[in-house]
Amino acid sequence: MQTIAELGESKSLALGLVGLKPAANEIIGTGDDAAVVSTSNNQFLVSTDTLIENHDFRLDWSTGFDLGWKAVASNLADIAAMGGNPTSLVVAVAAPGSTTLDWLRDFVAGLQAACDTLAPGCGVVGGDLATADQMMISVTVMGELAISPVLRSGAQPGDNVVVIGTLGRAACGLALLEFPNKDFAKSYDEFVTLQLRPNPPISQGVIAAELGATAMLDVSDGLSTDAARISKASDVSIEIDSSALLGYQAVLELAGQSMDCDVLEFILHGGEDHSLLATFPPDIKLPGGFKKIGNVVSRREQNVYLDGKPLVASGWDSVTGS
Amino acid sequence: MQTIAELGESKSLALGLVGLKPAANEIIGTGDDAAVVSTSNNQFLVSTDTLIENHDFRLDWSTGFDLGWKAVASNLADIAAMGGNPTSLVVAVAAPGSTTLDWLRDFVAGLQAACDTLAPGCGVVGGDLATADQMMISVTVMGELAISPVLRSGAQPGDNVVVIGTLGRAACGLALLEFPNKDFAKSYDEFVTLQLRPNPPISQGVIAAELGATAMLDVSDGLSTDAARISKASDVSIEIDSSALLGYQAVLELAGQSMDCDVLEFILHGGEDHSLLATFPPDIKLPGGFKKIGNVVSRREQNVYLDGKPLVASGWDSVTGS
Repeated sequence: MQTIAELGESKSLALGLVGLKPAANEIIGTGDDAAVVSTSNNQFLVSTDTLIENHDFRLDWSTGFDLGWKAVASNLADIAAMGGNPTSLVVAVAAPGSTTLDWLRDFVAGLQAACDTLAPGCGVVGGDLATADQMMISVTVMGELAISPVLRSGAQPGDNVVVIGTLGRAACGLALLEFPNKDFAKSYDEFVTLQLRPNPPISQGVIAAELGATAMLDVSDGLSTDAARISKASDVSIEIDSSALLGYQAVLELAGQSMDCDVLEFILHGGEDHSLLATFPPDIKLPGGFKKIGNVVSRREQNVYLDGKPLVASGWDSVTGS
Repeated sequence: MQTIAELGESKSLALGLVGLKPAANEIIGTGDDAAVVSTSNNQFLVSTDTLIENHDFRLDWSTGFDLGWKAVASNLADIAAMGGNPTSLVVAVAAPGSTTLDWLRDFVAGLQAACDTLAPGCGVVGGDLATADQMMISVTVMGELAISPVLRSGAQPGDNVVVIGTLGRAACGLALLEFPNKDFAKSYDEFVTLQLRPNPPISQGVIAAELGATAMLDVSDGLSTDAARISKASDVSIEIDSSALLGYQAVLELAGQSMDCDVLEFILHGGEDHSLLATFPPDIKLPGGFKKIGNVVSRREQNVYLDGKPLVASGWDSVTGS
């Protein structure tokens, strides 16, 4: 099996990137100093996110395909969370020289599959490959807006707090991967799969914006942490009703019993499902898949409350790693 | 001194990013899921490049300021090389947890200083900070075009081959840093400085495009390697005239003598000056600072010739590291 160190950057990219489709909005794609991408209305959205080996992923858990998928999915969610439509990505990979061309091809297949599944038409328009001791995948995603962006700062007292997508599944999957008895990871492989290849509701971001969402973000670091971000940015507090979380708990109940753990922790503090957390004025009728979990209230002492008690943010911090 | 591990991502960013100015084209900046940037004509340019510790830089040679500057400068050059105007950057940093807040602030000051000096109005609109064993800096730059992009593939037989900017200085600076006798690095600190904080002619990219450049790229990996890229993309060969390189040699001569090395090697094969290499139809009058170094000729066996003899590409490859 050939390694990227044997091939060098140019050949590795030439051989590894076969299978990447042009983005629908691409005017000039990979191979020149920069790509040229069209955008519908004289503005574009841009966001960046990085995955680092042994901090954000483990190579004994994730295949190249998984990592390509996850890097794309987590970035697409940031565009969706603004109410935008992702159009293009650039991907920088730093990997040990011993990384094989086969791994790179599998990674590229994962990038493309995530685009095709989650944001059809979006594609990779540029990239960079270098060697490093530790694998690092840094993705920048660009998108376009049909209407005004939905920020974190627009939530108003009286708004409904709504989740679009799953909660706690990726964290449950991570716990299963870390659990000593590996049989359970096989029994509940849907959660392991969601941890490795998240499936955020990308197309719902535009729909939420069009419905009139007042604030939105994606739940990347856990509901408690991300709800607090809306709370701080909007200068409001958020009340979550635990009874609205029972459905999320029911899904995880058997897996949680197997590991003897409280699945509510996954739902409240687990990240990486990359679902959308949004606020809507109370008069807006919510479509199927938009689950009300609480209310925006006037600013109080704490950012977030669960059944009236302070809910302290304890989600993931990418620097402290806890 | 506080470290980023003690502070966590949010506080490190909040404290470290003080001093960053908004980009002129910024509609929504840092702090939300994505930034929103305006662009003049329904399209944007995008490129990405990564710097990796002990491959692209050494922390005992480069300060945080140097690295912020270099990461910006090398990326801006990719936009200039398309004939574009850089408008915005997103910056992902992975650094050991022991990295201090002071280092991060110095790095951010370097990002801003490079923008202010090389592309006024361009600014950082988003970022990501995470811990890793090895420091990695991944920058994505966006820009806009006033006219059609200048690709690598447009060179025509009969065109002049032109360099805009310096050649060999950054490679000379690297050789001085690596040289056992450290006195010479002090004697010729202008070359060391250019290695650490490259000064590419960003604003000349638009001028070259408007003058009618048929092909262009930035010399990031060495003249021999980068000229071959135009040659291959345009299906032509390139003849370089060594007498046109005498001026570049003269500048480096004393430093080269001190190290007992042939400075022509720096000029032919050294990268990181990030000057622009462009081709122009012969009837176009070249302005000051645009130095003709050769001619585009019909496709021959080799990509690049120096005084009629094949010039084999031996520039930097970011994967093989040689």
